[in-house]
Amino acid sequence: MDFPTWMASIQQRTESALEAVLPAAELVPSRLHQAMRYSVLGGGKRVRPLLCHAAGAIFGADATLLDAPASSVELIHAYSLVHDDMPCMDDDDLRRGKPSCHKAYDDATALLVGDALQTLAFQGLATRLPGIAPARQLEMVQLLATASGSRGMAGGQAIDLASVGLQLNIGALELMHIHKTGALIRAAVLLGAHCGEAAPDALERVGHYANRIGLLFQVVDDILDAEASSEVLGKTAGKDAAQNKPTYVNILGVREAKTLAGELRADAHQALSTFGPAAIRLHELADFIVDRTF
Amino acid sequence: MDFPTWMASIQQRTESALEAVLPAAELVPSRLHQAMRYSVLGGGKRVRPLLCHAAGAIFGADATLLDAPASSVELIHAYSLVHDDMPCMDDDDLRRGKPSCHKAYDDATALLVGDALQTLAFQGLATRLPGIAPARQLEMVQLLATASGSRGMAGGQAIDLASVGLQLNIGALELMHIHKTGALIRAAVLLGAHCGEAAPDALERVGHYANRIGLLFQVVDDILDAEASSEVLGKTAGKDAAQNKPTYVNILGVREAKTLAGELRADAHQALSTFGPAAIRLHELADFIVDRTF
Repeated sequence: MDFPTWMASIQQRTESALEAVLPAAELVPSRLHQAMRYSVLGGGKRVRPLLCHAAGAIFGADATLLDAPASSVELIHAYSLVHDDMPCMDDDDLRRGKPSCHKAYDDATALLVGDALQTLAFQGLATRLPGIAPARQLEMVQLLATASGSRGMAGGQAIDLASVGLQLNIGALELMHIHKTGALIRAAVLLGAHCGEAAPDALERVGHYANRIGLLFQVVDDILDAEASSEVLGKTAGKDAAQNKPTYVNILGVREAKTLAGELRADAHQALSTFGPAAIRLHELADFIVDRTF
Repeated sequence: MDFPTWMASIQQRTESALEAVLPAAELVPSRLHQAMRYSVLGGGKRVRPLLCHAAGAIFGADATLLDAPASSVELIHAYSLVHDDMPCMDDDDLRRGKPSCHKAYDDATALLVGDALQTLAFQGLATRLPGIAPARQLEMVQLLATASGSRGMAGGQAIDLASVGLQLNIGALELMHIHKTGALIRAAVLLGAHCGEAAPDALERVGHYANRIGLLFQVVDDILDAEASSEVLGKTAGKDAAQNKPTYVNILGVREAKTLAGELRADAHQALSTFGPAAIRLHELADFIVDRTF
């Protein structure tokens, strides 16, 4: 199976798994459930589920088993987008080409949608997975929680808020992104590995891969944001620049940011070297993340 | 030990448990961690932890074991208060006699505080509890998630939002409260019972107790709100009335609401009858909830 076909198949099964775990739109309170489904279904590249399935495949995990952690990670990601888009945070009116949740519904509903999507992520991951020992499954719940909370994703968001208008050095920027996006990407990879038989040293190597991919993802995002603004004539400056947010491009310049992306990609590939062809999807995903840009 | 002494001891151990599970204020991101601690510590009656410990005591659960579910339920409650107080929800400037989180900090921080407190609740409950089978602990995580999510507390909040300005009948009002406050109170009781050896029929009886207590709590709240407004000369009308929210007092009048409270209390006591003296704290808590008013 070539990469695009594999990717489409995982995206499709993730959509089905999310569709199944989300409460039906008719269930009371139906407006909340509609808004939850609106915010999760029918959009997104599903990068985290792809990483989860790709990592699980290395260790012989069954795809059916991987649907639960893949969906839970995506639900955490979706909740963070809904809350980040709210007026008191990034105040974004558009998400995935549609009005963001608080525009399509209202602020109070968006707040509850994010809250309930987070809850649903943990509910899904705590549902007994046949073939996984309950003690390991508890570890998986903890892993997702640690990655999502104040020492992970939510903490990264707080560091981001505190950084607006500041001159960050590259180390401080990296610290922010390790929390804000890196932690959840790492959780996606490790949860996939936990669904199979991964020895501690193998976990460490896929964890290292995940760390590189997490930063790579952000460096590429910053380059995309900067290049879009300079390419399109008459368009205002990139959103990050407009909001005076520190980015890799601000600190390093586009050329050096691209060099960094190349290094991170090479390092990610290197971390997978001992796994052989079993890691092909993770290799392909590293390239996919970069090839969005250049 | 008399009831006030027992209550003070549980409140104190809950405070210590929360203090221990919350990240230190110095940890990065420190402003977020300060705001999380501000929103949780040093206030609140800790009704849910009290219920959790009281229910656990019936089934021989060790108090040390009960601290984890008691704290997790309280963290969920605390997160819901932080989000409910935000301008896009109830827009409350005061909470427990102090500025609410978004007033003491800012809206974005309050949003993240609520998010991170929810995560911490699940992180805490997924941490291995010695003496509880991992499979049962997973059930406990699921139980808390179900009670907190769109079919529980968050759903009740959504029903509440949709009810403002509407003429609800008593059944619709009850449905709202069963979700909004009842689900988490029920979870507190059941999680306590899960920490001991509770047979299915015993779980059903404490569950019934919890359902009555949950409604009782709300009926009493509505009476308190209405009576405070009429007692204090020159004060504006009760907050619920001002916000045009449906209450038991609006629908039934004060006298009939008090009758209902009496019936719910009697029913709650009745549900505990087979447990004998082991259920003394749950009996006392039922009375405590009512005696706040009359």
